[in-house]
Amino acid sequence: MGNIAAAVQAWRELLPPGAVNSEDAVLDRYARSTQDRGTRPCCILFPDNATEVQAIVRIAVAQGVTVYPISRGKNWGYGDACAPTEGASIMDLSRMNRILEVNTELAYAVIEPGVTQGQLYGYLEERNTGLMMDCTGAGLTASLVGNTLDRGFGHTRYDDHFLTTCGMEVVLADGRILNTGFGHYPDAKATWVYRYGVGPFLDGLFCQSNLGIVTRIGLWLMPKPETATFFYVTVDRDEELAPLVDRLRPLRINGTLQTAVHIGNDLRMLSSKGRYPWQLTSGKTPLPEDVRARLRHEGGLGAWNAGGALIGTDGQVRAGRKALKSALSGLGKLKFVSDNKLAWAERVAPMLRRMGLGARLEEQIKSLIPIYGLLKGVPTDEPLLGAQWRLRHPPEGPGDPLDSGCGLMWVSPVLPMTGRAATEVMRIAGPIFPRHGFEPLVTFTMINERAMIGILNVAFDKAESEETARAVQCYDALFDALMTAGYIPYRVGPRAMSKLTQGSKVFWDLARQIKQVLDPHNVIAPGRYISKDLA
Amino acid sequence: MGNIAAAVQAWRELLPPGAVNSEDAVLDRYARSTQDRGTRPCCILFPDNATEVQAIVRIAVAQGVTVYPISRGKNWGYGDACAPTEGASIMDLSRMNRILEVNTELAYAVIEPGVTQGQLYGYLEERNTGLMMDCTGAGLTASLVGNTLDRGFGHTRYDDHFLTTCGMEVVLADGRILNTGFGHYPDAKATWVYRYGVGPFLDGLFCQSNLGIVTRIGLWLMPKPETATFFYVTVDRDEELAPLVDRLRPLRINGTLQTAVHIGNDLRMLSSKGRYPWQLTSGKTPLPEDVRARLRHEGGLGAWNAGGALIGTDGQVRAGRKALKSALSGLGKLKFVSDNKLAWAERVAPMLRRMGLGARLEEQIKSLIPIYGLLKGVPTDEPLLGAQWRLRHPPEGPGDPLDSGCGLMWVSPVLPMTGRAATEVMRIAGPIFPRHGFEPLVTFTMINERAMIGILNVAFDKAESEETARAVQCYDALFDALMTAGYIPYRVGPRAMSKLTQGSKVFWDLARQIKQVLDPHNVIAPGRYISKDLA
Repeated sequence: MGNIAAAVQAWRELLPPGAVNSEDAVLDRYARSTQDRGTRPCCILFPDNATEVQAIVRIAVAQGVTVYPISRGKNWGYGDACAPTEGASIMDLSRMNRILEVNTELAYAVIEPGVTQGQLYGYLEERNTGLMMDCTGAGLTASLVGNTLDRGFGHTRYDDHFLTTCGMEVVLADGRILNTGFGHYPDAKATWVYRYGVGPFLDGLFCQSNLGIVTRIGLWLMPKPETATFFYVTVDRDEELAPLVDRLRPLRINGTLQTAVHIGNDLRMLSSKGRYPWQLTSGKTPLPEDVRARLRHEGGLGAWNAGGALIGTDGQVRAGRKALKSALSGLGKLKFVSDNKLAWAERVAPMLRRMGLGARLEEQIKSLIPIYGLLKGVPTDEPLLGAQWRLRHPPEGPGDPLDSGCGLMWVSPVLPMTGRAATEVMRIAGPIFPRHGFEPLVTFTMINERAMIGILNVAFDKAESEETARAVQCYDALFDALMTAGYIPYRVGPRAMSKLTQGSKVFWDLARQIKQVLDPHNVIAPGRYISKDLA
Repeated sequence: MGNIAAAVQAWRELLPPGAVNSEDAVLDRYARSTQDRGTRPCCILFPDNATEVQAIVRIAVAQGVTVYPISRGKNWGYGDACAPTEGASIMDLSRMNRILEVNTELAYAVIEPGVTQGQLYGYLEERNTGLMMDCTGAGLTASLVGNTLDRGFGHTRYDDHFLTTCGMEVVLADGRILNTGFGHYPDAKATWVYRYGVGPFLDGLFCQSNLGIVTRIGLWLMPKPETATFFYVTVDRDEELAPLVDRLRPLRINGTLQTAVHIGNDLRMLSSKGRYPWQLTSGKTPLPEDVRARLRHEGGLGAWNAGGALIGTDGQVRAGRKALKSALSGLGKLKFVSDNKLAWAERVAPMLRRMGLGARLEEQIKSLIPIYGLLKGVPTDEPLLGAQWRLRHPPEGPGDPLDSGCGLMWVSPVLPMTGRAATEVMRIAGPIFPRHGFEPLVTFTMINERAMIGILNVAFDKAESEETARAVQCYDALFDALMTAGYIPYRVGPRAMSKLTQGSKVFWDLARQIKQVLDPHNVIAPGRYISKDLA
């Protein structure tokens, strides 16, 4: 286990006052998790720069201890700020929150891991850069770097965050600093605009792994489009999920739909704007079908609800609308919402309500606005509401899921972008939820031109120990059933990391071999995706 | 050096008759290069499948010898089929030329390294798949896998070949088979549609390296667009290169231009359709300015000539034309060529010629057709003509550059997509060419939304030893000057591989460390990008 006391002593001598914290109250905070349980660290380190990160890992090596780096720790549904193991030294990079450069000509930013979605958004807006970023539903305080390293995804044309990252600075376990791409050439001109550099492309090593500590990335931004029109398609019947996917796919593959398209079921849409209807159900779970039907109707929702954006010039958006209408002809209800239309509806809805009309319109607008913002790169805490679905005593507003005892575990299989695959995933996963007393909250996101990521939410109330126990069983059952059927997750939380080697060998052996050469003392984030020992 | 005789003996026992070849005439063929000189191998191995590849490397390890894998060896301008070192055993994967799957629903192919551009094109057309691939100007017999592993690029929306590769099968130096992405899970459903899998993304290790032998890849294809319109902009003055880049950049960044845009100077355009005008210049080199001006005029060329495609529905293409016209307003001459227009021009041009008119139109059409084809995924040998620019005794038609003694070395710096950078590269490189008796044949390709790759051609006649010697000096001078100025190449030939570590340390040390763990006996392609020994 090494000499943790000596390491903490050395870290205290190295870092300024307050940058090493092992107060009980603080450790308790970091031990909180949206998983069934978190792990309690032994201290929290707050380096201010890469030089301090280097010194910290050198001390860790010397003392035989480990460090678990986090950016902001907002890894909702996948383990939050918790290390996989108890008693870790958390390296919290939140003080490294500098926006080092924003280049408006070439549309990129260079940022540190502590930079949050809200911070970069504010920076771009205040300076009228005309640029927008892609953001996720993880809220204002989530780290952009952290999400990228977990290969998270958002809602716009740059939905694949790793794909739109260019150039990394990485502190290795022996304290060396690696610059990837062209960044290791001192005067390279294309460091932040061309990802591969020359020779092997190494950036992929540092995502979903424990092979280094990323202290800086280049992040590509988008010019705000001349026009953006949100589209929204609902289908009333579950059986229409398959044709919905199959009709949208050609538009994604041929580049008409350039952004992520999210397809959520009624339950997932309901959970994004409200909590479980404890009163309507008299406390019964899972949600009875008649209540579900009623809420779906009142919310103006379909069984499945797809949304995305058309962007570009007026002419491009017009052409996109036409292609979309033609592709979806005869299937579901297609609506377009533009900035003008939304502003109009916001004005009209209260008038209609006063006349006793349009309650559904108002509901629809309320649920649309945050999603609409995400499509335009505006971060919001609203989607975090979804984590509160099962809370008996929810707070006002979304807030921090950890403050309100939200339980949340995501199972996130990747599937080919076909109606068949979506149907099969629902056939497998659908019955598992009610069997454990839950209801399926599901989104399928068209993340690239050919694949979808399903996000299956196991949302529970951590104040309820029996529900929490069932949530774990539900998660395991979902995970195992989908994995067995070939729907492998794109990302996992701590419960599932050890399951990833099932049925595979060479890939994970190789990952471990690389770990052994880059981090022979297993200093960085042991157990995060890659375990040390060969099978 | 190991026991090569024993290795050859063991390979002969392993492989069927004819699959190990060390006839002098064959070795001489493989020793040919478009570089100033090639390297002569000691034998050529022709495995038929991954199992044979595994057995070959196991024998190499046992006997302490090395193998140099090539797909088809058409690595024009960067070393062709030659290993960096003399006496190599070439592993020629051309017999592994199976198209294992074409999925028309999800638009991908699974192919082996021996599959050529011409072969896949023919397959897709014969079966009326409605799909197209991206191809390069390397000709009909070039390997798609080989180009991808060198991170080559083409002309369409899928111009970045590594980016549109999904899933690799790799034989490692110890004979294990690695499947990347989700491919290592036996029943994974998304292997060919989602690149990253779960855990670290390893595919980048196998590009521009010597860390494994790729024996299979998934390759994404595109549905043929409803409409494609080729656009073609010329500017008359060199000073207009900068505004041309700066006006096109916003359209590339905002997604209006989804394909690669190639910007060639007059000389590069001339070299793509004819050879050096030996008669007009009475054998003098480099090309006198007055002759250059005359040829430029006769060819209907600008000082710089940009071309790309607008694709999609009629409405999308119309919107793109409008955006392009508006962006280029007042700069140069913008022309659009559609299928209909080209067919019409092809009919009209001979009539005009008979009337003594339109010679320039005919010239323009002749130079457009092959490029136009590339924009639609149609491979052609025409661009190989460029390699013959300096030949005194050229063959009829393009043919194989090695058959006609073409000398060709490409310097290919990456630069930010700005007029400033393009101007600076020309300011640095422009004078170096004539100083060594050559003229600058240059293309800048907008390879992604923010970066350009410059292809600077040093074309020479290998029959002329003095010119060949000057070509080497010219190459070195270009390479060193651009590297020093921060314009690092995206790809290199054997002359430059050892120069890549200049000014850098950690990156290449790390690459070598990974080499040592994956290939401790340095069996695979020693010296290819990564050298064995730590600095």
